[in-house]
Amino acid sequence: MYIVKQEDGYRLWMRYDLISNPSLIENYKSLINEIIFNKQSDTIKVALEEMQRGLNGLLGATINISNEISKDNFIIIDKVNNLRNTYSINHDIKFRYLGSNGYRIFSSSINKKKCIIITANDDIGLLYGVFCFLRLIQTEQNIISLDIIDNPKIKLRILNHWDNLDRTVERGYAGSSLWEWKKLPGMISPRYKDYARANASIGINGAVLNNVNSNALILIKKYLIRVASLADIFRPYGIKVYLSVRFSAPIEIANLDTADPYDDKVKEWWINKTDEIYSYIPDFGGFLVKASSEGQPGPQDYGRSHADGANMLADALLPHNGVVIWRAFVYDNDVPEDRAKQAYNEFKPLDGKFGKNVLIQVKNGPIDFQPREPFHPMFGAMPKTPLVMEFQITQEYLGFSTHLVYLAPLFKECLDSDTYAKGKGSYVSKVIDGSLHDQKITGISGVTNIGSDRNWCGHHFAQSNWYAFGRLSWNPYLSSDEIATEWIKMTFNNNKDFIKSVKLMMMESREITVNYMTPLGLHHIMGWDHHFGPGPWINKGRTDWTSVYYHRADLNGIGFDRSSSGSNASGQYSPQVRDKFDNIDLCPENLLLWFHHVPWHYKMKSGRTLWEELCYKYYKGVQSVNLMIEIWKEQKGLIDNKRFKHVKALLKIQEKEAKLWRDACLLYFQTFSKKPIPSKYEKPKKTLKYYMNLRFKNVPGI
Amino acid sequence: MYIVKQEDGYRLWMRYDLISNPSLIENYKSLINEIIFNKQSDTIKVALEEMQRGLNGLLGATINISNEISKDNFIIIDKVNNLRNTYSINHDIKFRYLGSNGYRIFSSSINKKKCIIITANDDIGLLYGVFCFLRLIQTEQNIISLDIIDNPKIKLRILNHWDNLDRTVERGYAGSSLWEWKKLPGMISPRYKDYARANASIGINGAVLNNVNSNALILIKKYLIRVASLADIFRPYGIKVYLSVRFSAPIEIANLDTADPYDDKVKEWWINKTDEIYSYIPDFGGFLVKASSEGQPGPQDYGRSHADGANMLADALLPHNGVVIWRAFVYDNDVPEDRAKQAYNEFKPLDGKFGKNVLIQVKNGPIDFQPREPFHPMFGAMPKTPLVMEFQITQEYLGFSTHLVYLAPLFKECLDSDTYAKGKGSYVSKVIDGSLHDQKITGISGVTNIGSDRNWCGHHFAQSNWYAFGRLSWNPYLSSDEIATEWIKMTFNNNKDFIKSVKLMMMESREITVNYMTPLGLHHIMGWDHHFGPGPWINKGRTDWTSVYYHRADLNGIGFDRSSSGSNASGQYSPQVRDKFDNIDLCPENLLLWFHHVPWHYKMKSGRTLWEELCYKYYKGVQSVNLMIEIWKEQKGLIDNKRFKHVKALLKIQEKEAKLWRDACLLYFQTFSKKPIPSKYEKPKKTLKYYMNLRFKNVPGI
Repeated sequence: MYIVKQEDGYRLWMRYDLISNPSLIENYKSLINEIIFNKQSDTIKVALEEMQRGLNGLLGATINISNEISKDNFIIIDKVNNLRNTYSINHDIKFRYLGSNGYRIFSSSINKKKCIIITANDDIGLLYGVFCFLRLIQTEQNIISLDIIDNPKIKLRILNHWDNLDRTVERGYAGSSLWEWKKLPGMISPRYKDYARANASIGINGAVLNNVNSNALILIKKYLIRVASLADIFRPYGIKVYLSVRFSAPIEIANLDTADPYDDKVKEWWINKTDEIYSYIPDFGGFLVKASSEGQPGPQDYGRSHADGANMLADALLPHNGVVIWRAFVYDNDVPEDRAKQAYNEFKPLDGKFGKNVLIQVKNGPIDFQPREPFHPMFGAMPKTPLVMEFQITQEYLGFSTHLVYLAPLFKECLDSDTYAKGKGSYVSKVIDGSLHDQKITGISGVTNIGSDRNWCGHHFAQSNWYAFGRLSWNPYLSSDEIATEWIKMTFNNNKDFIKSVKLMMMESREITVNYMTPLGLHHIMGWDHHFGPGPWINKGRTDWTSVYYHRADLNGIGFDRSSSGSNASGQYSPQVRDKFDNIDLCPENLLLWFHHVPWHYKMKSGRTLWEELCYKYYKGVQSVNLMIEIWKEQKGLIDNKRFKHVKALLKIQEKEAKLWRDACLLYFQTFSKKPIPSKYEKPKKTLKYYMNLRFKNVPGI
Repeated sequence: MYIVKQEDGYRLWMRYDLISNPSLIENYKSLINEIIFNKQSDTIKVALEEMQRGLNGLLGATINISNEISKDNFIIIDKVNNLRNTYSINHDIKFRYLGSNGYRIFSSSINKKKCIIITANDDIGLLYGVFCFLRLIQTEQNIISLDIIDNPKIKLRILNHWDNLDRTVERGYAGSSLWEWKKLPGMISPRYKDYARANASIGINGAVLNNVNSNALILIKKYLIRVASLADIFRPYGIKVYLSVRFSAPIEIANLDTADPYDDKVKEWWINKTDEIYSYIPDFGGFLVKASSEGQPGPQDYGRSHADGANMLADALLPHNGVVIWRAFVYDNDVPEDRAKQAYNEFKPLDGKFGKNVLIQVKNGPIDFQPREPFHPMFGAMPKTPLVMEFQITQEYLGFSTHLVYLAPLFKECLDSDTYAKGKGSYVSKVIDGSLHDQKITGISGVTNIGSDRNWCGHHFAQSNWYAFGRLSWNPYLSSDEIATEWIKMTFNNNKDFIKSVKLMMMESREITVNYMTPLGLHHIMGWDHHFGPGPWINKGRTDWTSVYYHRADLNGIGFDRSSSGSNASGQYSPQVRDKFDNIDLCPENLLLWFHHVPWHYKMKSGRTLWEELCYKYYKGVQSVNLMIEIWKEQKGLIDNKRFKHVKALLKIQEKEAKLWRDACLLYFQTFSKKPIPSKYEKPKKTLKYYMNLRFKNVPGI
């Protein structure tokens, strides 16, 4: 039996509780008699602090810290240069592989005394090395013959907070915003530091503090000083702050009569404003911009292009080494023939027209963070422009903070997609890490699920998505499975049976959710506005905000014909990809209705008709949630009761809502298919009318 | 030196840390060898749980629980009837004083064994007794010859949450709403129970869960089931739930074409809805109603009176023993001659017209929770109607959760006011506790400052206001000083020097805030809409929402003439009170400008002119904040550093904002007085124009 401490989730994966196996503790202790550390910088200070906190907790003992070697079996944490100069350690062949912010951890000896060396070229690399070392201990790894070299594969690893200045959070399901603007800069909540620790522990090195639907006020002095106070807390942890800026800010806060990027006064205003920002925050990251999209002001208001807008801001940032991250999530006020095509159509012609410190941020799929989308056709199509991947960590379309959905498989599905941009093997991950088109600057963003809830993310398992995003931002080639293993061990425990069961739940959870929400390539059939629950019947308002626009169900069949005989969105992909998507027989069935309008009687690979397959998937989704509940119940006693009960309660809600999705969608689609739900399945409890009349008001997330 | 544990404030005043004095622990232990307890009900179960938690923590030992007496020096917790029947304890003379929910704690002996007896007529009385006993230990009282009898003086002791269904909180400065509606009833946060414990520990026995500006949706089945799930958690702690209802709910959620209280369909709908509520929540408390006020729908929309509206609802509640609490905070859409007079004018004629289960909830003063107001003239003027006192615990007009303001002195100032309704000694407290006019049902409400922030209230010292409200709701005759002492001891420690210093800060803090915000009876001169910061210059919009309407500064003087030569609001008070307020020379100087328009050269009791006195007060306010900072700094090391730093940072913000109030108000009023700020004071740093141009957007509290 484990001794289980009640846990409220605040400590995330950095729990550092005493290791349960005493002989393992002794083993670790014998290898860590002392830590040699030189506190030259704030970053090294916090690295030491973390090392002490971690080891003291995990090993239940205070490890001596020194700046001189005296005992055998010590750990030394120092930069490569110091190792060379002070200890004559010359591993130049290995060290050559160490890049900026990377670290090396290896077993060695100095003055004939055995040691583990954690080294890096820079301070922040040392901090990352310390977090990696603690992870080894937390996950109970052998630390005898270590030789790890690990460099971040992507340069900018950024959280996007959609936090408003009044502490509401757009698509936030975990309480209010972390940022207590009213009390800043005077009151620095201890939580800011824990936020920074958590991010640094997984390699995140940037945070956009405010919503992309931005309030211009963030740029006035009062707010900039508040932003600076947060930047000061984050700095030792290697985290830069970025701001979402409103394109019309010069009009709104400086009374200019235009925000035209060609106007000299506008340019000058942005230059001065940017200089002012850097006077408060010397390492400010840059601007994130949502412009000329969904009603936001932008360069198109003045007949200018996205490149014109972005470059103006980029010019202001360039002297300070700041970047512009310009979002490609755009669509016209005029309803397009196919919204999926619009970003590509607008941005592809601009490839090569952006300043060298401009990155274009592209959502993983061409619509909007649906449970499943094909990868965005811009990936691979913009060889001259660095593209930032935008993932959504917050579960806007995946059950809010109420459904257990591990998102690493969704992220990986996109990253592992082959664009064929430069032939086979041109994975999206290679676009993002810059290797495909030799980009100097690379980035990845995640729209966070973090709020003021005690457990940060509302659902204990939602923490795994923050974790997975961070780990993949560091290394997009990690597998969902290994990330899940790490996370479970650190967040819960190292019990093998527990890990196996819980990992099974996690690894299946995303496909389960797709099944009960939007199987076979369905998408965008959720409730109006708040995006809660099913709403396939929604047919009012702006056409490309309705559900019927996306599923196009009729008496013949269902699905959006985006093949060459339809909107030809498939034509935006490389020929090899296009040909696959374009052909109903080659198109992966999990994207079938994304690309094709398919007859109800169409024969699927399973031998079932499309209608039967749809029923099968929806029912399977709900059955699988039941199975998750059963698996979870078996974990009782293996973890603390507090988290056990919390997750159990949420799984029950998930089950209820999964049934709601299933029954509402099948009853609605049945009005077109005119076919019965196979009798082996339990019948929906209510009528379609009942589901259509349900109203979900005041759901969280504004 | 104390050993100080870092504290994040979550545990409030129920910290139960080990007593620092070992001999005191031994003394307590010797008197508590065992606890005799019979777990007959859920309430008694939670009382036992609390007793164990408390004593285990405070004494650092597990006290044996038994249901049979074996050792000397035990504690027995049982109802009066059981004591009589099982142990032949007949203290009938004393027990006669024990009322409903009251408790008695006394030293005695049973079977010649010494014991402490905690007893009550009912289960909830036992729970209150347990909390009282723990308080004795927490505050390190002698428990040798105990004889305490304590009954609640007021029947309904209710928190009002102005929480919206989307988790925003009107005038909430501590994060988002505690109630996670979306996850209820499935997910019961452990926090709900801690909320109930905290309330029960100070005698609060009701909670209105939603904003008085109510959303009709709270009455649909889905929400009622969620409400019921909270009621289930609160029930063992003696806390009933109430709901704010929207008068037009029958139109909005039931499609009736009217909400006229004379309409039979409307009456029937409310009866059915009320029956439905009680089917889910058998002990539901009742409705709180804001109607025909500030744009809210109400009976006046149909030409009916407040009594008509209230009585219709009361009829529906009566069979279930529920109550209607109808708010008197009303004012016309037509701007009245003097808003201060309106509630009295509307309600006084209705005295005697309300059903027997209707209470009228009246704010402490006639305007709106200002830092200082005279008591509301309705107190004492409605002999046939039970009046509920409405205090505001959240600091809407007192610096949000950023200023340290202990509100017990404000509450007490009102409660201790003499209405003279039945001659000298007719205190407001006697109106509220029902003794003055022999009311059968009595109540007191506090608009809470509780949110999802880890420390519940945003500011550690704001917890004292929740505490003080609860203690005064139980017994309005307690002094601010003794409540502060209790709270400091339980929240921080029992160090005498610390208590003395911190109590000094607390006891002065409200007057300090009045001084730098609204001295000498000034009121309602704050910023527009959000109510943050000074805005004496506000003169646009609805007249009685402007500041100039209230301060009426001109070249001759300043203040609102509410005397018999002005609006005659003074005439709404009893003659003895009226005569005092009416006469400029008798009127208390702290309310002078509330009742009189006073010339700038008017000679104050201090010998200073009015203008000089105004300067003196504003400067004194800021100086006193400095003093609070100095006092607080001296406490370093006496409490944990976490809370020490938190409070220190907030005091610094308070100082800055106090200066803002002082300088903005004095510079503005100076444009009328045309007199210099005496040269002994430091000059305001900026011009009036600067202060007038400051914009405070996105301040918390919606």
